[in-house]
Amino acid sequence: MTRIDDLPIRDELRGKSPYGAPQLDVPVRLNTNENPYPLPEPLVARIAERVAEAARQLNRYPDRDAVELRTELARYLTRTGGHEVAKDQVWAANGSNEVIQQLLQTFGGPGRSAIGFEPSYSMHALISRGTGTEWISGPRNDDFAIDLAAAREAIAERRPDVVFVCSPNNPTGTAVEAETVLALYEAAQAAKADTGGALVVVDEAYGEFSHRPSLLPLIEGRPNMVVSRTMSKAFGAAGLRLGYLAADPAVVDAVQLVRLPYHLSSVTQATALAALEHTDTLLKYVEQLKAERDRLVTELRTIGCEVTASDANFVQFGRFDGEGGAHAAWRAILDQGVLVRDNGVPGWLRVTAGTPAENDAFLDAVRTLFKERSLKENER
Amino acid sequence: MTRIDDLPIRDELRGKSPYGAPQLDVPVRLNTNENPYPLPEPLVARIAERVAEAARQLNRYPDRDAVELRTELARYLTRTGGHEVAKDQVWAANGSNEVIQQLLQTFGGPGRSAIGFEPSYSMHALISRGTGTEWISGPRNDDFAIDLAAAREAIAERRPDVVFVCSPNNPTGTAVEAETVLALYEAAQAAKADTGGALVVVDEAYGEFSHRPSLLPLIEGRPNMVVSRTMSKAFGAAGLRLGYLAADPAVVDAVQLVRLPYHLSSVTQATALAALEHTDTLLKYVEQLKAERDRLVTELRTIGCEVTASDANFVQFGRFDGEGGAHAAWRAILDQGVLVRDNGVPGWLRVTAGTPAENDAFLDAVRTLFKERSLKENER
Repeated sequence: MTRIDDLPIRDELRGKSPYGAPQLDVPVRLNTNENPYPLPEPLVARIAERVAEAARQLNRYPDRDAVELRTELARYLTRTGGHEVAKDQVWAANGSNEVIQQLLQTFGGPGRSAIGFEPSYSMHALISRGTGTEWISGPRNDDFAIDLAAAREAIAERRPDVVFVCSPNNPTGTAVEAETVLALYEAAQAAKADTGGALVVVDEAYGEFSHRPSLLPLIEGRPNMVVSRTMSKAFGAAGLRLGYLAADPAVVDAVQLVRLPYHLSSVTQATALAALEHTDTLLKYVEQLKAERDRLVTELRTIGCEVTASDANFVQFGRFDGEGGAHAAWRAILDQGVLVRDNGVPGWLRVTAGTPAENDAFLDAVRTLFKERSLKENER
Repeated sequence: MTRIDDLPIRDELRGKSPYGAPQLDVPVRLNTNENPYPLPEPLVARIAERVAEAARQLNRYPDRDAVELRTELARYLTRTGGHEVAKDQVWAANGSNEVIQQLLQTFGGPGRSAIGFEPSYSMHALISRGTGTEWISGPRNDDFAIDLAAAREAIAERRPDVVFVCSPNNPTGTAVEAETVLALYEAAQAAKADTGGALVVVDEAYGEFSHRPSLLPLIEGRPNMVVSRTMSKAFGAAGLRLGYLAADPAVVDAVQLVRLPYHLSSVTQATALAALEHTDTLLKYVEQLKAERDRLVTELRTIGCEVTASDANFVQFGRFDGEGGAHAAWRAILDQGVLVRDNGVPGWLRVTAGTPAENDAFLDAVRTLFKERSLKENER
């Protein structure tokens, strides 16, 4: 049998494993920040209808520029993001991962570097490496906020071509202040002034769940500022793989130099358009999830957990510094039928806000875990 | 207004234009090798049904490994490709372009090189460059067959990490003999023996239209051999963006190191599965198109064209060496409402086999063109 290492793969891939959360069959899955609410049945019917329309022309290539979809995404951003956005400022791809990959192929790549402030969304680092972009791990404070002074220093010293700011940040839930983003933008432009500046990518995958307004208005007058979004979370459409960005029209023109032609299928475009028709209903689910997220924070604190302030549809909780650390706690919660996420942040785990019943099951599991722990400690 | 060149994009992208055929609104579009037959209505209904099922779980991420789809693709290949293929030997992505991109990220990339024998599918070169892989333009004979001696020499000298063999070749329609592929495989392994060999990618996007059997059986016992396919052409599903490959299971494991997680949406998977249920019907359209392709060859020759022998759903015809060359002929045919493709091969154009009526319109346009030309020549 041939093994991967028998093949002439790139050296930096040797010994690596594919990225992805364990997919386990358990009653309560709160590990991948999915929206727990299935799409409402009228929307399912509308998707079937629009996909059938698209299927009647499936023998033809899709609209390569996804004009109708980008128009509707621009309308949605204008309505909810506090800033007027035109179709020419929007680009869409198969998940925000592909958006990020296209940005890195255009603005990063061999001989260039990107910085993120970790712990953060691990795909920023992985896609950087996958596109040959050197990855720089920037710092955070102990409370998981970006350490602005240290971040500026890192930018001035390392001169990255791309700066990732994830807000709300995954896996910590931490939102970033507009002032911080602006300071990082200025620092990045100053550091790379000789080569036309650096691209700053604000990843707002969880933006709709935030207590604060979107950072979208920051793109105004800043051609090197990009805000990326996804329909996976707020639109309850993780299975659709539809990510998008808003930026200066020149950025949208630029990524078209590297995008694979016809990258976005007509069934994807049709399904996304149907979902956008039902925006109001889907945003009501977002409100429910925000309330559940806030409940998780309160109840976890009551149980005795430390909790990172969250602006997302998930909560980082801990600390599990004792025996076995976070992974032992992850296992103990899993043994009670609830799957949460061990993102490798020492002492912390991440739980997605599910339905009220799912969240209750999770909270029960954590209560049991804490009781057992305190029994053990009393025995000593 | 900001222009692309004001942005800090990579130097090699400066001054470039996005890839893609002109999308013009004309009565007869025979320029992108699309299948002219819309999907039959029972299949459209089945797609709507399967997509509705998928949409009921759209809040969840798709099956990251697309197991059901890969199982059905393996079954299809086993049935039609003359070789038994298992699910673990199949990988699928958003169009064969994404399959090729993943292969190049794994086996090509910075510091590595890829060769193709041109003129050929131009995305091989473009995706190579997009992944930082050096592109080597290999030779062909005047009849557009691969010049084996010259090809071997180029491989021995340049030592590419990836070798592309497009069969039937786009845009010429030329099929490649199994012996030629094997000779290139041996040459590539010998040239790179010190680093574990080189990957040979046989691009069979148009395989179903060939007079000859698939090259699929060549993967047996050759871990560095890959056959890539697409549902865009034979399955009449260019809008679906579903490409796939068959190879040693180790190759399938290897590309998972670079694939974006959840790259293939659940609506894409559902639509592809529905189409595979209707394979028999769709392959009947393929037979019709093969007959039409052969008719185009015969009639073009009668008109006085030179025609390259075609195993695909398109025909390369010429020669237009005179005034204005191929582009003037392209324009003259377009002026009669028929859009064909100028791939930049000096003296030649490419026409897709359409419906009988579309092909008649095309043949009339070429007849008119030839009549006008001979009138002009007589006037001189």
